[in-house]
Amino acid sequence: MGKKRKTGIEPTRLENFPMWYQEAIKVSDLAEHSPVRGCMVIKPWGYTLWENMKNILDQKFKETGHQNAYFPLFIPLSYLQKEAKHIEGFAKECAIVTHHRLVKDQEGNLTPASPLEEPLIVRPTSEMMIGEMFSKWIQSYRDLPLLINQWANVVRWEMRTRLFLRTTEFLWQEGHTAHATKEDALEETMKILKVYVDFAQNILAIPVIQGEKTETERFPGAVNTYTFEMMMQDGKALQGGTSHFLGQNFSKAMNIAFRDQEGNHSFAWTTSWGVTTRLIGGVVMTHGDDDGIILPPRIASAHVVIIPFIHSIESKKNILSYCYRLKEKLKILSYHGKKVEVIIDERELRGGEKIWFWIKKGIPIRIEVGQRELKEKTLSVGKRTRKVKEIEWQQEEEFCQTLCHQLDEVQNHLFEKAQAFQNEHLVEINSLSDFDDFFKTKKGFASVHWCGDPSIEKQMSEKLNVSIRCIPLDGDQKEGSCLFTGKKSPRRVIFAKSY
Amino acid sequence: MGKKRKTGIEPTRLENFPMWYQEAIKVSDLAEHSPVRGCMVIKPWGYTLWENMKNILDQKFKETGHQNAYFPLFIPLSYLQKEAKHIEGFAKECAIVTHHRLVKDQEGNLTPASPLEEPLIVRPTSEMMIGEMFSKWIQSYRDLPLLINQWANVVRWEMRTRLFLRTTEFLWQEGHTAHATKEDALEETMKILKVYVDFAQNILAIPVIQGEKTETERFPGAVNTYTFEMMMQDGKALQGGTSHFLGQNFSKAMNIAFRDQEGNHSFAWTTSWGVTTRLIGGVVMTHGDDDGIILPPRIASAHVVIIPFIHSIESKKNILSYCYRLKEKLKILSYHGKKVEVIIDERELRGGEKIWFWIKKGIPIRIEVGQRELKEKTLSVGKRTRKVKEIEWQQEEEFCQTLCHQLDEVQNHLFEKAQAFQNEHLVEINSLSDFDDFFKTKKGFASVHWCGDPSIEKQMSEKLNVSIRCIPLDGDQKEGSCLFTGKKSPRRVIFAKSY
Repeated sequence: MGKKRKTGIEPTRLENFPMWYQEAIKVSDLAEHSPVRGCMVIKPWGYTLWENMKNILDQKFKETGHQNAYFPLFIPLSYLQKEAKHIEGFAKECAIVTHHRLVKDQEGNLTPASPLEEPLIVRPTSEMMIGEMFSKWIQSYRDLPLLINQWANVVRWEMRTRLFLRTTEFLWQEGHTAHATKEDALEETMKILKVYVDFAQNILAIPVIQGEKTETERFPGAVNTYTFEMMMQDGKALQGGTSHFLGQNFSKAMNIAFRDQEGNHSFAWTTSWGVTTRLIGGVVMTHGDDDGIILPPRIASAHVVIIPFIHSIESKKNILSYCYRLKEKLKILSYHGKKVEVIIDERELRGGEKIWFWIKKGIPIRIEVGQRELKEKTLSVGKRTRKVKEIEWQQEEEFCQTLCHQLDEVQNHLFEKAQAFQNEHLVEINSLSDFDDFFKTKKGFASVHWCGDPSIEKQMSEKLNVSIRCIPLDGDQKEGSCLFTGKKSPRRVIFAKSY
Repeated sequence: MGKKRKTGIEPTRLENFPMWYQEAIKVSDLAEHSPVRGCMVIKPWGYTLWENMKNILDQKFKETGHQNAYFPLFIPLSYLQKEAKHIEGFAKECAIVTHHRLVKDQEGNLTPASPLEEPLIVRPTSEMMIGEMFSKWIQSYRDLPLLINQWANVVRWEMRTRLFLRTTEFLWQEGHTAHATKEDALEETMKILKVYVDFAQNILAIPVIQGEKTETERFPGAVNTYTFEMMMQDGKALQGGTSHFLGQNFSKAMNIAFRDQEGNHSFAWTTSWGVTTRLIGGVVMTHGDDDGIILPPRIASAHVVIIPFIHSIESKKNILSYCYRLKEKLKILSYHGKKVEVIIDERELRGGEKIWFWIKKGIPIRIEVGQRELKEKTLSVGKRTRKVKEIEWQQEEEFCQTLCHQLDEVQNHLFEKAQAFQNEHLVEINSLSDFDDFFKTKKGFASVHWCGDPSIEKQMSEKLNVSIRCIPLDGDQKEGSCLFTGKKSPRRVIFAKSY
C-alpha cells in the first residue's frame, strides 16, 4: 500500500486477464482454493451470491411446475456401463470410491480397508440415477409429466482448475423431466432455456446469445442441445448453461416407459438442463473492472455499506447511532421482493482503506457518514459503477425513497455496458483472412456463414482454438455462402474461443 | 383395497412400530431406498419438508450472526490422522476415494484407474477441513468471532440403514464457530441449543428434553455436549441435534490461534453444532398415527388440498372453476410469513381414494367441493388431527379468514398431544426393580438419580440396552441418592432406549 495506487487490482484486465480474474476473486473474498486438489472453498461473500441466484432460479422452477428432490451422491459403476455415450461425455475422469473402512496399519497409519464389491462413482451428474428412479416411478400417462429438479454438488476430476470456472467439485442444479409427447418435451426444453436467458439478462445483468449447439458440441445422447453463451471481457465465450431435448434416446437406454391413454406401451420423451456455480465466474468476468468485481444488485451479497468516518472520540457516538438509525430505515425496504441488505463497517481502519475494501468487494452502493453528513443531513453516496471519487450528495430522505430505484439504475447500467461490449465485439466476418486475423489479433465473437460440415469445426479448433458456440435463435436469419467451403449456409453461426 | 379398511397403515404402531414407520414413509411418498446401498432418494414431498425446515433454521442462524459457506466434499486422509479422537468417533466407517479415472479393460468393462497419491475421504463431517481453513483465516482478535454454517451432504458408512434415521448419506447443517474467550464460546453453544429447542417445539411441534450429555455420550473432543432429546411413540429417544463446546481442544489440534488485543498469542475457543434430515424421521415418529404421517403446518409441504367431487360431466366445469377461485383466495394468505400452499387434486380417481391418499400424506387440511358445497357456499373441511369422518361445515368466507388460525390450531394440537404423551411416559423411578421392569415391560424415559459413575452406563447398556440421554437443564434439580450405588446424586438424569 506504500506505493501510489493506480487500480484496485493488479494486474489490470488488459495486462493479464486470467491473473486479474484470480486476483479479483481473492481480494473480494468470494472463494479460495482448498487443500484438496481442484476443490474450492466458497467463502460467505461468494456463497451468498450463489444463495441469491439459487433462490431466484428455484422460484422460477417452482412457478413452472417443477419439484425438488434429492438423489444419492454415489452411482454404481454398472450404471455408467449402461449408458456408454454418457461416459464418453464426462464420466471418464471421476472420483471412484473403492473402500468403506479405515484401519490402522502396523505403524499406526490410517489405511483403506474393506473393498466394495462394486466401486461407486461420485456423481458427475445424477442423470443415470434419476433415470433409474424415473423408470420405476413412471408407469402410466397419469404419471407424466414428471418435472424434477435437484440442487447438488457434483464431481468431475479436473487436472487444471480455475475457481468457479473449472473445479473438481462444483455446485449446480440439474433438471430432469419426462413427458408423454415429443411436443411437451420440446416445449419444456425451450421453456427452461427462456428461464435461463431471462435470469442471465435480468438478474445477472449479462447479455447472452441463445442458440442451438452443433452436433459436435451437443451433449452426448441429446437430440438438441440449447445453450446461452456469454461474452467475457477477454472476448471469450462462457457457456452459461444448457437445456437438452433428449428425445427418446435416454428413456430407451433407461427403460422409462408408460402406458398411454389407449393402453399402448410407449417410451417417455425426456429433457435435462442445468446451470452451475460457474455463473459466478461469469458475473466476475462480465462486470468486473480494474478495481475488482462489481455485483449486480439483484444478486448482490449486500446492497449498501455505510462507512462511518470518525475523527474524534466525541463524534463517535453520534455518528454511529446515526448509522444504526439509517440502517434500520433501509432494512425495511423491499428490493424486488427481497430485503435490502445493509452493512455498517465499524472496523478500526482508516476511511480510505474501508472504501477500497468495499470497492473491491463489488458492493453496489457506499455511503460515507462523518461530521459534515450528520450536520447537513445529507449523505455522500458512491456507486460502484462510477469513478471512485465521483460522489453524489443526497438528502437522507430522498436517498431512502429512491434507493431501490438507484439499485435498478446500477443493475441496468451493468447490463447496458455489457451489451455495448458484446455489440462491439460481435463481428460479422465474411472472408477467411479476416476470420484468421480476428482470432489472432482481436477479441470477441465472429458471426459467420457455415455450411454445417463438422470437419470445419475440427479444423478451426486445431488451427485457431475456436469452436461454434451456437447457432443463434435470434438475429439475422438470412442465407449465405459458407465462409470455409462456399457451399450454401442456412444462417450465420457464432465462432469464439471459450472457457 | 377390496377388504374393509381399518387403518390407513398396516401394521398399526402398536402391532409393529418399525414396520409402521417404513410403511408410513412409503405411502406418504417422503422417500425411498435407492439402488445404492444405504443411500436414500428424498422424494419431492419429503424434500419440501426439508426445504421448509432448512429455510426457517437458516433464517435463525443468520439472525444470530452466522454466515453460510461451502467447503470441499473430500478430506485428505492425513487430516483424519491429525485428529485421532475424531476418528474414534465416526470416521472409521467411511467412503474412501482411491482412484480418479475409469478405463475399459480388455473385455470392455469399466474399471478404476489412476490411483490417487493420497486417498480422499468423503466428508463424514467438515470439522477438520473447516478447522484447517479457520487456522488460515484467523490471525487476530479482529477476525473473531468467526461464525460459519454449512448446509451439505455427508457420508458415514452404515451397515444397517433406516430411512432418515440412519443412512449412509444424509443432509445436514454443521455450524463451526471460533471465539476469543471461553465465555463467548459457551454463550454461542447455549444460544444455538436454544435455537434448536425453539425450532423443535414451535416449528416441528415436538416437545424436547434439553440437557447435557454424560462423558460417555459426549462428542469426542468436546468439553460439553448439549442435546435435545425427543420421545418417539415407541418410547425410544431420538437425539434431535447437538451443540458442542469444544474449549481449546480443537483449536490446539488444528492450530487455530490469534493475537489478542495485548498482542499475546492465544488459542481460539470453538463450538460446533448440527441437525440432520433425521429430524424428518422424528416428525414421522412423533406425530404419525395409524392412518399415516401428520405434517405440522409450520413445515408442511402443502397446507390445504381441495378435492373436487364430480358426479356428472355437467357439474365438472362449475366445480373445478370454483376450486380454482378458492385456491387463488387461499394462496394470497400469509402463514407465518410464508405463502399458504394449496393443491387441487384433479386426478380421475374416486373421491374416497383421494381422501385417503391425502390423509396418508399428512396434509393438515382437506376441503371437499361437490354440488352441495357449491350450492350452499359452504365447505366441508377435514382436519388431519381429527377422525376421518369428522367433517366441519364452514362458510367459505369464514374459512378463508380463519385458515391461518385453524392451521395454528392443528400445530398446537400436535404439540399438546406429543407433550401429553411425553408427560405420560416420562417416569420418575426410585428402585432398581422398577427400573428393570420399566425397560422390560413398558415404554418411555426413566428419570432417575445417578451418582456420575460411567461404569453404571456401561452395565445398563449391556443389560437393558439403555443409555443416559441427557442430564436435563430444566425440571427437578433436587439432590438424591443414586439408584444403582446409593451414593450422592446431584440430580435426576434421563435413561432411555434410543435410535
